[in-house]
Amino acid sequence: MDKALSDLKVIDLGNQLSGSWAAMFLGDLGAEVIHIEPPGGDECRNTGPFMEKQNKNSSLHFINVNRNKQGMVLDLSKKRGKNILRDLIKVADVIIEDFAPFTMENLGFGWKAIHEINSKIIYASISAFGHDCLPEYVNVPGYDLVAQSLSGIMSITGPYGGPPSRVGTAIGDFYAAAQAVISILAALYYRTSTGRGQWHDGAKVDGLSYVLENAIVRYTIDNEIPIPLGGIHPSITPFQGYKTKDSWIIIPCGNDGLWNLLCSKIIEREDLINHPKYKTNGLRTDHRDKLNTILDPIFKEKTTAEWLNLFQKVGHPASQINNIKEIIEDDNTKYRKLVKEIEQPEIGKVKALNSALSHMSETPGEVYAPAPQLGEHTEEVLKNILKYSEESIKKLKQEKIIG
Amino acid sequence: MDKALSDLKVIDLGNQLSGSWAAMFLGDLGAEVIHIEPPGGDECRNTGPFMEKQNKNSSLHFINVNRNKQGMVLDLSKKRGKNILRDLIKVADVIIEDFAPFTMENLGFGWKAIHEINSKIIYASISAFGHDCLPEYVNVPGYDLVAQSLSGIMSITGPYGGPPSRVGTAIGDFYAAAQAVISILAALYYRTSTGRGQWHDGAKVDGLSYVLENAIVRYTIDNEIPIPLGGIHPSITPFQGYKTKDSWIIIPCGNDGLWNLLCSKIIEREDLINHPKYKTNGLRTDHRDKLNTILDPIFKEKTTAEWLNLFQKVGHPASQINNIKEIIEDDNTKYRKLVKEIEQPEIGKVKALNSALSHMSETPGEVYAPAPQLGEHTEEVLKNILKYSEESIKKLKQEKIIG
Repeated sequence: MDKALSDLKVIDLGNQLSGSWAAMFLGDLGAEVIHIEPPGGDECRNTGPFMEKQNKNSSLHFINVNRNKQGMVLDLSKKRGKNILRDLIKVADVIIEDFAPFTMENLGFGWKAIHEINSKIIYASISAFGHDCLPEYVNVPGYDLVAQSLSGIMSITGPYGGPPSRVGTAIGDFYAAAQAVISILAALYYRTSTGRGQWHDGAKVDGLSYVLENAIVRYTIDNEIPIPLGGIHPSITPFQGYKTKDSWIIIPCGNDGLWNLLCSKIIEREDLINHPKYKTNGLRTDHRDKLNTILDPIFKEKTTAEWLNLFQKVGHPASQINNIKEIIEDDNTKYRKLVKEIEQPEIGKVKALNSALSHMSETPGEVYAPAPQLGEHTEEVLKNILKYSEESIKKLKQEKIIG
Repeated sequence: MDKALSDLKVIDLGNQLSGSWAAMFLGDLGAEVIHIEPPGGDECRNTGPFMEKQNKNSSLHFINVNRNKQGMVLDLSKKRGKNILRDLIKVADVIIEDFAPFTMENLGFGWKAIHEINSKIIYASISAFGHDCLPEYVNVPGYDLVAQSLSGIMSITGPYGGPPSRVGTAIGDFYAAAQAVISILAALYYRTSTGRGQWHDGAKVDGLSYVLENAIVRYTIDNEIPIPLGGIHPSITPFQGYKTKDSWIIIPCGNDGLWNLLCSKIIEREDLINHPKYKTNGLRTDHRDKLNTILDPIFKEKTTAEWLNLFQKVGHPASQINNIKEIIEDDNTKYRKLVKEIEQPEIGKVKALNSALSHMSETPGEVYAPAPQLGEHTEEVLKNILKYSEESIKKLKQEKIIG
């Protein structure tokens, strides 16, 4: 199979999850990604889980987000380190970074400088509030938790009426990364006809706020501040999770026909079908709390498997809430190949996530190479891409400009 | 300013959020998007919030996800409706849909048929489990709630040790849409050099599972099933939310230096700095529950504003948990222009979300046109793009093939 982006060179200065994850998408699609780390390694190498304690080459987090990449160690605090980055910018198509605003500027690689070195390059920066932000936001640290807390997403996540909850994964990093990749690819498409590069100034807080679409427009209409709703649908009832004898079940009862089915064939409460308080979805939503005093104890009577069996028999949608073990072992997940085994040098076989773009018919995203060990490809990159002489590489190494 | 995708034609059969949201990204970047709806309108038109009750042209949800698009009503159950779609496929670059698997196939527009009509077209489908899925998954309804429950994301979201919680927004739809856009743009880039189209068979459950990266790899190492952690960081302490006198505060105390600062200058508990149970991050994480019996009551003593003031003075990171009102009114959010006013015909001024790609330097994503009223551009599309005669359009209208 061909790869979609195999003629592209990407400089990946991602020091933590968001930038490295964005570059990973491009690597999965075949781009030549050079992951540049400071001496000692990037932040992901120091984040677990580890296959072997104290071994920076064994962070499964690092391996996952940096598979398919070449790795290079470069000391950008030194002038000659900067020269190497300048040489790379000259030949690259894309440069990605996730430092705090002004870090690149202070190193001498703000957008203006990058653009002057190579006017065709596409530059994506990911930070908490954007490089173009108000001065008092520049130094706020860009942790995913901070982006989640400030974006509003925590204020509507959690059990009904309960405390605000963090989304259990670094969604602020992941969504900003996806938006950066979209902007990079759109910019590449634009470049094919114009030859012009550009800068995407991405922000994690922006990225998350955009996906609050419905909550935000609801507020702009009636000034009512949305709260955490658990799994409850604001305008369909019952459309939520219920506790069963052994776990939870999700019941998306999307219309009055399904309500009829639920009452008559599943919970055997025909009296509720045409009940004056519950016969239409509008009524059920208006009387949700009261209705749930009836439904809550009913669903506790059987196990999730027993309920699912009943729902399935009559063709009413329902599902369990999978935990991590269950989603990995799910038949369809296995069929779609969510998890892929990588042969990681020095470590052995490890389980990593497959490419999220593995279902493209011509150029499927793939995991085709392991993650680099610290500095594994430094010399290769200098020799093959930048045509540095053996001697100059040796000297750079002796002087600890590279590693 | 130029637009990145202004030479592209996109057929948007998005009937609900995921497909319409994917096409929205392309429209924001300047593609000519034709949003095709069945007679009576798509599902988003029937979903609130509404500016005017019972007015299908006034759903702010629909307006948000379909701004910048042309709208067309087409009856695909009729043979002549299908002919029109076939003619559109001939001239389009991209086609997006979010029906259940086999819906397109049953209409005569599976990938093979689409590809035969136009071998250069790029087709993105978004469903719950993929079109290429096990037979028993085909008929499971693809609601976002179901994707969230099955993907595993709910099992790690919610308060520490509490019930599984839905992410408060339709993140299953949003992430699958972003992945679809990434695959479309990568495929377009590939097409510029090969001329070949392709099909991205996206799945909401896949999409969400991929962003559980860390939880999944943690499980593959030690077989321990991750649970909801609230805002707690699994390996840094304190790095979570605390209840204050009036709301919540997030304290990302990322290292021992910050711990020193926190104890000496903010909570005034110098005794904790070198305490044998709390002096290093590792120790604090091992004794988190015990430490929180000390910290919980301390943070309840002052309001969030009072705490933030103290943290800011000494340069320790901390943030409030914004609600929806606060994120809309946040100074930097306003500066970055999260919300944009649209002049929507028949309805008047409405507040919509700006483009998430509005910070590209050459081709910023933009909201430049309102959403279509039901069938607003049907005749225009047939006349201008497909060059149908006035007479044939009139006839199609009389026979209710179009609307």
